[in-house]
Amino acid sequence: MKNSLNRELPDQIMSDLNYRPFESTEIGHPEIQRTAPVVRVTTGNDKVTDDLEAVVKNNVHDGMTISFHHHFREGDFVFNRVMGIIMDLGIKDLTLAPSSLTNVMNDTVVKAINSGTVTHITSSGMRGSLGDAVSHGALKAPVIFRSHGGRARAIENGDIKIDVAFLGVPNADRLGNANGMYGDAVFGSLGYALMDAQYANKVVLLTDNLVSYPNTPASIKQTQVDYVVEVDKVGDPDKIGSGATRFTKDPKELKIAEMVNSVITNSQYFQDGFSFQTGSGGAALAVTRYLKESMVENHIKASFTLGGITSPMIDLLKEGLVDKVMDVQDFDKGAASSMADNKNQQEIDASWYADPDNKGAMVDQLDVVILSALEVDTNFNVNVMTGSDGVIRGAVGGHQDAATAKLTIICSPLVRGRNATVVKDVATVVTPGDSVDVVVTERGIAVNPKRQDLIDRFNQVPGMKLVSIADLQAEAEKIVGEPKPLEYTDRTVALVEYRDGTIIDQIKEVKD
Amino acid sequence: MKNSLNRELPDQIMSDLNYRPFESTEIGHPEIQRTAPVVRVTTGNDKVTDDLEAVVKNNVHDGMTISFHHHFREGDFVFNRVMGIIMDLGIKDLTLAPSSLTNVMNDTVVKAINSGTVTHITSSGMRGSLGDAVSHGALKAPVIFRSHGGRARAIENGDIKIDVAFLGVPNADRLGNANGMYGDAVFGSLGYALMDAQYANKVVLLTDNLVSYPNTPASIKQTQVDYVVEVDKVGDPDKIGSGATRFTKDPKELKIAEMVNSVITNSQYFQDGFSFQTGSGGAALAVTRYLKESMVENHIKASFTLGGITSPMIDLLKEGLVDKVMDVQDFDKGAASSMADNKNQQEIDASWYADPDNKGAMVDQLDVVILSALEVDTNFNVNVMTGSDGVIRGAVGGHQDAATAKLTIICSPLVRGRNATVVKDVATVVTPGDSVDVVVTERGIAVNPKRQDLIDRFNQVPGMKLVSIADLQAEAEKIVGEPKPLEYTDRTVALVEYRDGTIIDQIKEVKD
Repeated sequence: MKNSLNRELPDQIMSDLNYRPFESTEIGHPEIQRTAPVVRVTTGNDKVTDDLEAVVKNNVHDGMTISFHHHFREGDFVFNRVMGIIMDLGIKDLTLAPSSLTNVMNDTVVKAINSGTVTHITSSGMRGSLGDAVSHGALKAPVIFRSHGGRARAIENGDIKIDVAFLGVPNADRLGNANGMYGDAVFGSLGYALMDAQYANKVVLLTDNLVSYPNTPASIKQTQVDYVVEVDKVGDPDKIGSGATRFTKDPKELKIAEMVNSVITNSQYFQDGFSFQTGSGGAALAVTRYLKESMVENHIKASFTLGGITSPMIDLLKEGLVDKVMDVQDFDKGAASSMADNKNQQEIDASWYADPDNKGAMVDQLDVVILSALEVDTNFNVNVMTGSDGVIRGAVGGHQDAATAKLTIICSPLVRGRNATVVKDVATVVTPGDSVDVVVTERGIAVNPKRQDLIDRFNQVPGMKLVSIADLQAEAEKIVGEPKPLEYTDRTVALVEYRDGTIIDQIKEVKD
Repeated sequence: MKNSLNRELPDQIMSDLNYRPFESTEIGHPEIQRTAPVVRVTTGNDKVTDDLEAVVKNNVHDGMTISFHHHFREGDFVFNRVMGIIMDLGIKDLTLAPSSLTNVMNDTVVKAINSGTVTHITSSGMRGSLGDAVSHGALKAPVIFRSHGGRARAIENGDIKIDVAFLGVPNADRLGNANGMYGDAVFGSLGYALMDAQYANKVVLLTDNLVSYPNTPASIKQTQVDYVVEVDKVGDPDKIGSGATRFTKDPKELKIAEMVNSVITNSQYFQDGFSFQTGSGGAALAVTRYLKESMVENHIKASFTLGGITSPMIDLLKEGLVDKVMDVQDFDKGAASSMADNKNQQEIDASWYADPDNKGAMVDQLDVVILSALEVDTNFNVNVMTGSDGVIRGAVGGHQDAATAKLTIICSPLVRGRNATVVKDVATVVTPGDSVDVVVTERGIAVNPKRQDLIDRFNQVPGMKLVSIADLQAEAEKIVGEPKPLEYTDRTVALVEYRDGTIIDQIKEVKD
């Protein structure tokens, strides 16, 4: 079977897993029966323990679904420790359903797959040794990749039913009231983990910082928590943030950032009260700086910024250029640590951020978003999941979700090393071209033909030259040559959900 | 059938409504499947309207369950307006499930009962013309009275399934992000209404103060809200608080307050980090003042105070005598307006406050609570529901919930007018004697015999004289005479749930 993007999907697996093929970016108005956890009643007076082994043994059983958050990013000390215990206990056939998997977790997951401990995975993404193993068929069942909003949707409607969530926090009181704002290993927003806390049957907090009762603000509440496990260290604060908050000096990145800023400021959306989301990384951070100058110059302020938050965003808040920072995750130490002191840096959960099956997520309100790409094709479809060798090395993240913005800008260098970024067909569609408006490379700006309004507008801007996406592709091919077609086996190693839960693409096992 | 307190319960009704008789104050460790709403998906861009009639017409249908909150107390402009429209539309057979019913709503409910619009009611309480009508058999189905924690429990497990919640708020943005802290009609904590917002299928906000998007803090979130209805005025701020925050000069109240303070400060619970809850009203407010003096004198600070919050509590917070004010509801303007500025005045929902079917509610952590009574009997059972004439004129409120404290003190004058407060048998048991530790009247302090530890302790306090509850009862009877037995028909007009959902008593139709 094929979906509306003409992507071939595996009939048997689609039928076995009861999946529908992707049709449209329109969500419509379905009525959704939400799900809810089973709660074991307690007065809450016996939650604290240092015996993590006993907690795992008494609560995790063969065939269950367990979850983790990735707010500690590469500084996470929780995942490997818990998974180590689980493997030592010989527990089998688990479904691993974390908000995402960071590199520090890779080897452990590979080991857990090989031992039969983990037989199913759903995640935002994976990289390194794990992506490699999965792409080479290590896991029998296909991995399900979901966006952050898609995961929230799946948890809320019961597609993901978490039996036990293990959530590391930089502080908690003896009943489990906790937040991400105080302590040694501060990561700021608990946005993704709030879904697990609300919906998992059993919630196990791990903390190195037991504070006095009652702990407030309580992003996670005592009513949701079964155990508070004391550990030595939950995370390495120096590895929580990417640290990349300095202004890039790469001339190509600067040029792209300037062009993106020109797209934004010349669009109809650049007006007082507009909203935007940028990611991390050099070009995105540089955009924030150019955009700031344009905002000051034009006396324009933003109503909110959204998403993974970086220090430059917090600077905009402090300088009064942005009213609210709506924060589902913090990408660096500065953003993480500022949440405690800024009441306008509002923690939001992944549902509020991006669940499409909602009474209105924040992403639905976005004017402008700047997103990256591993590949974008001449239909504006974007791949942020697989590399030029077809191997999994990325994450859906909030890509599909934020692409619902009124002006979705994909920015990327035209080529990376010997690989084209703009291609005829992306290896894996993660975000459908229908939700992409503009592609910016250092060689030119391509506007999606369906946005004739933007084309007309930009054509009147002196010095702003539009190119077609086909021209960009041809130019890239001229530089790096025609790519050799990737070779796969017949086996499906992963399915990529669109945010609404339909399948937008499959990923196949790579041939060695 | 009789329950463990020997209260006669109506077999047929108990069976029809699938109720179990009250057995014990112990909740145990049942596993509870929580429920969840049906959500109609939207991008949230068409929520604002001033056409309340259309919203009601399109969403409220015969046989549904609708809800309201009572945070505006006697200043509520929402309930009567919505109910008026519902009656005008001729909608019938509704179940009314507000957090409670205040006097300003009485006549409307009576009208709605008489017209067949409302055929079922569950509430914390009722008074005035409504209590009178129900006690005289106006409603065919028995009213179900629930504590605030019991209502949270019933909403969370699906015993109360709210189709449409109408929630008045002093501010909201166009997508429904709202709180109780800013605007003209500020009431502070939205504690009870947060249950409705989370669990109702449809949530209709009414506000007189549409603020810019995104509105934070969002006690109610856009993900929960279907409509934002603009109205002229949601409430009269002058009637939201009782205003009774002045120190009483009634010598009897002062004496009781001093005795209560003596009970607290001579108990083992009066130590650094203790916690307490008091209600509103003269004696309770006076207790807070005496307690404050004792705390200062003994260098003792409290970790938290809980419950309906009054200005004197906020003063303790500001003076550093209390670390946290855990706030499910504000009883006066001062407490309501201070929430915006005090990050240690933490808004909590009714589940966190008191749901017994939880992983630990705040009430489970209470050291000391001071509660009032209409009647208390020689088994320490308390009635806060029916008057000396057997007519409904009270509310369960948080009485049963907070009585789980380690030291539960009931304070009351020995007699009120020509009626005894301490009696042989209360007309209606709301809170079981098993959870009551001490009864304080101006004529003496009676300790529940099961608290021999307190008796031993207090007997060693110079000047502290204990009496038996039987002595208090006898003394009251000496003053006002033996009460004439109340006369009822055979009809049950209300059932009182214990907080765990069992039936602790019934209320019968009064004979005229």
